[in-house]
Amino acid sequence: MKKNLNAEIVAVGTELLLGQIANTNAQWISETLASIGIDVHHHVVVGDNLRRVEEQFRISGNRADIIIVTGGLGPTDDDLTREAFQQITGMEIIEHEPAMKKIEAFFQKQNTVMTPNNRKQARVFAGSDVIENQTGMASGMSLSYADKMWFFLPGVPREMKQMMADSVVPHLQHISGQETVIKSTMLRFAGIGESTLEHELQDIIRHQMNPTIAPLAQNKGVGIRLTAKAATNEEAAELIGRKKKEIIDRVGRHYYGADDQTLEEKVLALLKQANKSIGAAESLTGGMFTDKLIAVPGASDVCPGGIVCYDTKVKENVLQIPQNIIHQYGTISKECAAAMAENTSSLLDTDIGISFTGVAGPDSVEGYEAGTVYIALHHKSGNLARKFSFSGDRQAIRKRAVRKGFELLFDLLN
Amino acid sequence: MKKNLNAEIVAVGTELLLGQIANTNAQWISETLASIGIDVHHHVVVGDNLRRVEEQFRISGNRADIIIVTGGLGPTDDDLTREAFQQITGMEIIEHEPAMKKIEAFFQKQNTVMTPNNRKQARVFAGSDVIENQTGMASGMSLSYADKMWFFLPGVPREMKQMMADSVVPHLQHISGQETVIKSTMLRFAGIGESTLEHELQDIIRHQMNPTIAPLAQNKGVGIRLTAKAATNEEAAELIGRKKKEIIDRVGRHYYGADDQTLEEKVLALLKQANKSIGAAESLTGGMFTDKLIAVPGASDVCPGGIVCYDTKVKENVLQIPQNIIHQYGTISKECAAAMAENTSSLLDTDIGISFTGVAGPDSVEGYEAGTVYIALHHKSGNLARKFSFSGDRQAIRKRAVRKGFELLFDLLN
Repeated sequence: MKKNLNAEIVAVGTELLLGQIANTNAQWISETLASIGIDVHHHVVVGDNLRRVEEQFRISGNRADIIIVTGGLGPTDDDLTREAFQQITGMEIIEHEPAMKKIEAFFQKQNTVMTPNNRKQARVFAGSDVIENQTGMASGMSLSYADKMWFFLPGVPREMKQMMADSVVPHLQHISGQETVIKSTMLRFAGIGESTLEHELQDIIRHQMNPTIAPLAQNKGVGIRLTAKAATNEEAAELIGRKKKEIIDRVGRHYYGADDQTLEEKVLALLKQANKSIGAAESLTGGMFTDKLIAVPGASDVCPGGIVCYDTKVKENVLQIPQNIIHQYGTISKECAAAMAENTSSLLDTDIGISFTGVAGPDSVEGYEAGTVYIALHHKSGNLARKFSFSGDRQAIRKRAVRKGFELLFDLLN
Repeated sequence: MKKNLNAEIVAVGTELLLGQIANTNAQWISETLASIGIDVHHHVVVGDNLRRVEEQFRISGNRADIIIVTGGLGPTDDDLTREAFQQITGMEIIEHEPAMKKIEAFFQKQNTVMTPNNRKQARVFAGSDVIENQTGMASGMSLSYADKMWFFLPGVPREMKQMMADSVVPHLQHISGQETVIKSTMLRFAGIGESTLEHELQDIIRHQMNPTIAPLAQNKGVGIRLTAKAATNEEAAELIGRKKKEIIDRVGRHYYGADDQTLEEKVLALLKQANKSIGAAESLTGGMFTDKLIAVPGASDVCPGGIVCYDTKVKENVLQIPQNIIHQYGTISKECAAAMAENTSSLLDTDIGISFTGVAGPDSVEGYEAGTVYIALHHKSGNLARKFSFSGDRQAIRKRAVRKGFELLFDLLN
């Protein structure tokens, strides 16, 4: 079997270094290469500067087997990719006739005069394989130099993607001998921190081989990415399946789904299974919980609506929270949260009521500092009301409160 | 005058090389550095691999004056940024006591056990300036090595941005006595399309010099980016101020704010000025409108709450929408929207009521296809109920409906 090839993606363009756009080309190419078993070791962005592009090409050519260059093939003076590579290789640059005809035809079709600098877009390295641009003008190229494979693609995402699909991917699949496919899956967890999760799985992670195991903390909560290499998709899937089982046997209580599954979707599914409906009373979260639930298609089966009771008057007049509770305990209390959960479920006629009350900040309220949040659950199999302290700014606190609400529901229904 | 410093941004993280996320940190940092006159010459992404991170640090240290490293400071075994830099420099790594105390306090606050690997996040280079993490746990560092400035920041965007603002930017502004500053501002508009805006300003855009004028269509609506170059901040600010006035004289009716000002913030400010309160009745938007309003600090002055009436029963029982309206016109109708807006304002005792009813999709409802949305406003100076058809998936339709609601309020209050 052939050696495992690694790739580097070099984007040429000052606009990236000015922060005008993000390098989403590199992300897309990386995803594509991973799917055909090619490891990406570096992304680089370099500006439209001949010397720096040249130096970067030297570095990339020394450390990678495959170098995919995006950008710098356009008509303007600051498109320097060809010139920089020529500095290193001395390769001759010629005009590609079919490409030139296409460019001329384009301008005729537009009834506009072709400015001379457009000829540049038909210029290619002698002896390179020219990759036709189906949607734009600049031709792509693939060539081999000093035992390294070089691909030159336009920076325009649409044109780059078309050339990747038509030419680069098939080419790489062919030469990389496809002994290996890479399959990757993300296991998602709720109600457990990254460090605890990693601690629980320490030995499994320490002895990882294939699949590799990478714990990640994301906004979506904690996840573990399993990435397997194998000869076939089936084999890779089996490797992942076995490791997944091993992990879930340990921490399955906190596992809620794989890949793009969200906790809201999981909770919604569990509610449907249990044939239970839910309604929320939201103070500081201001409707975010209900919004996240209703964002999921099919929410109408389990969530008829919710009450946003940010102001005490609404807690009293709409949710009918007894005044004595508010006066005795305040609106930021276990007691108020519990009453909010109970009353919203009766007002909305749902099986489960959930409530959020607390301080989003920046200012403290009723003597409680920002981040103090009570969450209560009301349902016939018993009630729950807990106090939390969340950190971060106003929005982070509100998001964490909502996330925690879904985690409590997940625990309840799971 | 000091020499013009150049910077390189190195992101450490295999998730970037797998294409799981785009390197938006590099974009944001680049924009920030440009604004203080520091040129960025390279972005690099390298995976969680000790040898490769170490090699990249050597390359970056050789070519850049300022190296900003993001990521690899977390608690897990594959967070290797400190270790890689130590390989090169031999610098001692010590535990930063204040940071450690903060981490311990965090776990106490959460009532969860701190696993040992969390200590790692308090480890810093002896002699470095520790940058406090206001929203997370891993400390940042700035240090000087071999005449180069190194900054180590977490990969979590929120934490990275806070450290850039609190420490890195002031530090760099101080040491780079930059003689040209680039100042950029984004003018934001509501209720006008990109092409119309461009048409209205055609001559101004055609004759742009300094500042440059770039119209942009974003999720946040239509914007115009003005970018001025000058010797001093004051000069740049004046150039921008003059051009801004010229633009607003033309299309000021649609202008709602600059830079990070959101339409929700503007609407909230206008409500406060007018001393008016608002409450929403939300069907398909499921609380998103109220959530966006309450996300803004100070919302309590104008928004006591809202009603999410996704299900018809809630429209009838909580909002008291007359059955005959629902039977005669259906819930997706001008009439129902108008009643929802009126009843929510009386139920919540607000000056203004706004309502959203329609089809988020994917399926059509009551014979109306996804994207059909009615939005109504109820207030003493008159009512309004309009039909819209929004395109996109379920979430896009819901977001566009909410955005439109804020635009209608902006028109009403402006």
